[in-house]
Amino acid sequence: MARWQPDARGRLEAAALALFNERGFEQTTVTDIAARAGLDKRTFYRLFGDKREVLFSGGSRLEEVLVKAVAETDADPFETVVTAFRQVADEIFADRLDLVRVRQTIIDASPELQERELRKTNGLAATVAAALRAKGVGETTATLATESGVTVFRVAFARWVAPGNDASLADLIAETAAELRAVTSSPATPPARV
Amino acid sequence: MARWQPDARGRLEAAALALFNERGFEQTTVTDIAARAGLDKRTFYRLFGDKREVLFSGGSRLEEVLVKAVAETDADPFETVVTAFRQVADEIFADRLDLVRVRQTIIDASPELQERELRKTNGLAATVAAALRAKGVGETTATLATESGVTVFRVAFARWVAPGNDASLADLIAETAAELRAVTSSPATPPARV
Repeated sequence: MARWQPDARGRLEAAALALFNERGFEQTTVTDIAARAGLDKRTFYRLFGDKREVLFSGGSRLEEVLVKAVAETDADPFETVVTAFRQVADEIFADRLDLVRVRQTIIDASPELQERELRKTNGLAATVAAALRAKGVGETTATLATESGVTVFRVAFARWVAPGNDASLADLIAETAAELRAVTSSPATPPARV
Repeated sequence: MARWQPDARGRLEAAALALFNERGFEQTTVTDIAARAGLDKRTFYRLFGDKREVLFSGGSRLEEVLVKAVAETDADPFETVVTAFRQVADEIFADRLDLVRVRQTIIDASPELQERELRKTNGLAATVAAALRAKGVGETTATLATESGVTVFRVAFARWVAPGNDASLADLIAETAAELRAVTSSPATPPARV
């Protein structure tokens, strides 16, 4: 079992999330995770620093896909960011709704993990804005397009993981982006009735 | 000096920020702050839990002004949030640029304080979204209008505190809101040249 295994990372992630869900995050040990995945602890520690890291290890892959998509998309800055998030939805999240729901439940239960998630999201936003600026987009436009894209992604993501949803994340992102355009497109006057 | 003083809170805040700026946050004690304000420690502890709280004590006043402004503004949801932030700019921030700059420098130097600031901002956003929903705005629209408004405020605020700026925060908010409308208003097709 100690030898290199194809997709050891994926198996350890799935095992960890299943155990976190069954026993709780605190009650799960690295030994449990490795055993469930049919691997040993050394393999775990070669791939992850600790069990917390299993929850956040997707971040660098996400960043990679986002930056590449921003560089390759030929659209206005906001649409570029939305397109990049849709690509992330297809390439990274599409087949993982069950795992993502478990992960979300664990993070929602811990203020410490929520803070880490928030910091990661902020770091990601800075990277996306930098990728836009690298294409010649002005600083303020890059920030506003990125922050608006992150807002769209967060709202779409919450809808996607909500119980009973059966729409795809990519479709929810497109839908939420259209809603954000509508919310911010109305001119300041005349005021809407409330 | 132990008796009630008019604006003891304001004097303690100003004294604390001046000392944080001169000596650093860690090197400043509550005794120092009270002495600089010409008040005693008991007065300090009647108004603030600890010296950290001095940096965040404006939050509840900010929330109050925002919620009231959201309730009273008759405009579309995004414009309502922008108007509320402009009111906060006039009522709370306008005359305090120097203090705000010092505060920002202190917070930027501490990951712990940055996290607290982030949590406070998230809490504030939740309150504003709830105030919109209380007016009958749908949940998603309320969230998107609020998050977009918070983005506008954050970008405008960073411009306001930047060295060399002499525009008012309220004007910068209006300007940034117009820029966000422009960034998110272009249709998805045809793609812009990059």
